[in-house]
Amino acid sequence: MGTRGSVTYTAPVPFGFSVHAVDRESRARRGAITTEHGVIDTPAFMTVGTRATVTGLDPDDLAAVGAQVLLANTYHLMLRPGVELFRRVGGVHGFMGWRGPILTDSGGFQIFSLSADRTVSERGARFRSYVDGRMHMLSPERSIELQTAIGSDIMMVLDVCIDSTSDAATTRAAMERTHRWAVRSLAARSDTQTGDRQALFAIVQGGLVPELRAESAAFLTQHSFDGFAIGGLAVGDTREERQDVIALSAELLPLDRPRYLMGVGTPPDLLHAMLAGVDMFDCILPTHLAWQGTAFTSSGRVKITRAAYARADVPLDERCSCRTCRGSTRAYLHHLFKCGEPLGARLLSLHNLHHYQALMTEARRAIEAGEYARWARAKLEAIDRHEHGARRPGRRLEGAA
Amino acid sequence: MGTRGSVTYTAPVPFGFSVHAVDRESRARRGAITTEHGVIDTPAFMTVGTRATVTGLDPDDLAAVGAQVLLANTYHLMLRPGVELFRRVGGVHGFMGWRGPILTDSGGFQIFSLSADRTVSERGARFRSYVDGRMHMLSPERSIELQTAIGSDIMMVLDVCIDSTSDAATTRAAMERTHRWAVRSLAARSDTQTGDRQALFAIVQGGLVPELRAESAAFLTQHSFDGFAIGGLAVGDTREERQDVIALSAELLPLDRPRYLMGVGTPPDLLHAMLAGVDMFDCILPTHLAWQGTAFTSSGRVKITRAAYARADVPLDERCSCRTCRGSTRAYLHHLFKCGEPLGARLLSLHNLHHYQALMTEARRAIEAGEYARWARAKLEAIDRHEHGARRPGRRLEGAA
Repeated sequence: MGTRGSVTYTAPVPFGFSVHAVDRESRARRGAITTEHGVIDTPAFMTVGTRATVTGLDPDDLAAVGAQVLLANTYHLMLRPGVELFRRVGGVHGFMGWRGPILTDSGGFQIFSLSADRTVSERGARFRSYVDGRMHMLSPERSIELQTAIGSDIMMVLDVCIDSTSDAATTRAAMERTHRWAVRSLAARSDTQTGDRQALFAIVQGGLVPELRAESAAFLTQHSFDGFAIGGLAVGDTREERQDVIALSAELLPLDRPRYLMGVGTPPDLLHAMLAGVDMFDCILPTHLAWQGTAFTSSGRVKITRAAYARADVPLDERCSCRTCRGSTRAYLHHLFKCGEPLGARLLSLHNLHHYQALMTEARRAIEAGEYARWARAKLEAIDRHEHGARRPGRRLEGAA
Repeated sequence: MGTRGSVTYTAPVPFGFSVHAVDRESRARRGAITTEHGVIDTPAFMTVGTRATVTGLDPDDLAAVGAQVLLANTYHLMLRPGVELFRRVGGVHGFMGWRGPILTDSGGFQIFSLSADRTVSERGARFRSYVDGRMHMLSPERSIELQTAIGSDIMMVLDVCIDSTSDAATTRAAMERTHRWAVRSLAARSDTQTGDRQALFAIVQGGLVPELRAESAAFLTQHSFDGFAIGGLAVGDTREERQDVIALSAELLPLDRPRYLMGVGTPPDLLHAMLAGVDMFDCILPTHLAWQGTAFTSSGRVKITRAAYARADVPLDERCSCRTCRGSTRAYLHHLFKCGEPLGARLLSLHNLHHYQALMTEARRAIEAGEYARWARAKLEAIDRHEHGARRPGRRLEGAA
């Protein structure tokens, strides 16, 4: 059994976090986030619904695969359908029909990775809309205003995103601006009438430089954020570099606030980060790969379009209990992809999301039992064996894909 | 109350048809087809799943919208995944996970409408596969062999399809070959070991020439087919021409066999054909239009991509009880289509199929009550008013779209 804890955080908004158990041999922890729209068991994998939809799936589907919380994106939603609509319809929950918790990213990452015609100043970022070509301003204050109208349960501060491999001076400058923007975001929430219903998380930056990460965590944790994210990873870094930064950052974050690793999410990434005490994850991988015909299974990744599966009269994953595995064979899924039929991607999405949620359920049980470290290492070795074992014997664990 | 009847047909295969009630003022009739995979209440609208999938929907979805029977296509399935797979996996039911009745079209219509490099002779049709470029032969015997392997509950004879507006000599020649092919199909079923589990329907042809239609019905009904289809319509003809041929053909078909109008299916088409005593329908319209963003509603067709719906915080159809109308607003559906998100087409497909099934349920109740003719005329007038009323007052009923 893991160590039972009594760490609890109650925010001035309808948001709380409590840790129920900590693993015996790692920092992995089992807890719960409470929001106005329900409870999120942690560690949690958040399903990505960028444009207020998870591609091809509706809220009932998401509930069926075990999703408790969705992630939507301020950048995309401000451009389409536009924030005025959210003010009219009372926020994103009613708009998309999802009654559970929703976290909104601030748009920072998208401004820096997707926008054309972008000018960034201390005030914020000006960029051109991909929808209608008009110029928009996204400042820390504007992002809070938008997220307030969208009505998410958890808002993120606008941050400055750069390649994790940028030079130290660039990385420091981005980090320092991120800090100033975080403080402005916090002030903006206090000014915003309805923002007092929504939690606000800060984002630790600092690239791959340990000193900067430590400085960032030290600065941000002096302020009354409801949670802390680790940002700026999976943008050019290796898995080993990433793991070091995650372990270092997580350790410097307060015990009583949720820790959220942004946008990093192969199963090995999740397993490693939970060892370091990360509580929340999001990643487009399960749905993104599904639309490309790739499934996560208990015996490794399966590319369903391969000719080998054309006659495979067996479920996608014999050990999976999801609707897809109960109702379809590999041969049928292969057929759907070969025909370009969207049902194939839908069935693979349902399966992949179920696979991720099942992994998280297993992880939470292992933490409760105090056996997470052992369980996770066995799981990582199994994944490594499935992905590389047969082809590249002797490959080390760190290379698990 | 309609006239209670005792018309019953029991086939030498696990197939039967009985008529329970006939409308007071029309030939509309209420019955049931029994198959090895379940009962089909008639009049029935069959959902089109050409490639063993209804675009974006799985069997649970189809059951939820009230579908009792699906239509799959021999032409598409012989090319992909190929008939060998069906032999291995025990037919289309297990392959796609649909446990209810399935009807397969013979491939006749597709050979004539889709195939490149096609040569038709008395023996059958040679054509080039769109999948791998290889030449295939589809003869009446081969179609039965394929449909036997596919394992549908109802097979269709291979027929010769031409434009309904072809000249009389062409139409007669196509009809006479269709007759010879029908007789060969019947013989092929007798020769086929497992074909004795499957019903076989003939197809009345003869274009828009009343004498040929009568001759075709007279010829085919001399043979022991389990049902009779009316083919060759909605390929260049007007609704009025179609209605005349349907009324004429249906009247010449035996009372104790199901009558199936192939590929004709706007709601007014269905309402008119039921008046003439048609029992079965299929049409791609509800799913096809859904993928283009068009919904059937109780107040007419709605093109959801229109700017007018961007802020419409109301259900697609206030009077509909489907999952889409309970869970989504027009504004959300508009957003999904504007983003190119496939969930939009899925939700519209679910709604449109529910709309069709609800129409059929209402029709069956009206026949049972003996009030079909009156109910159908009121429904046709309402549809005409919604589609054309405001724009073109005074337009006559026949023009209903």
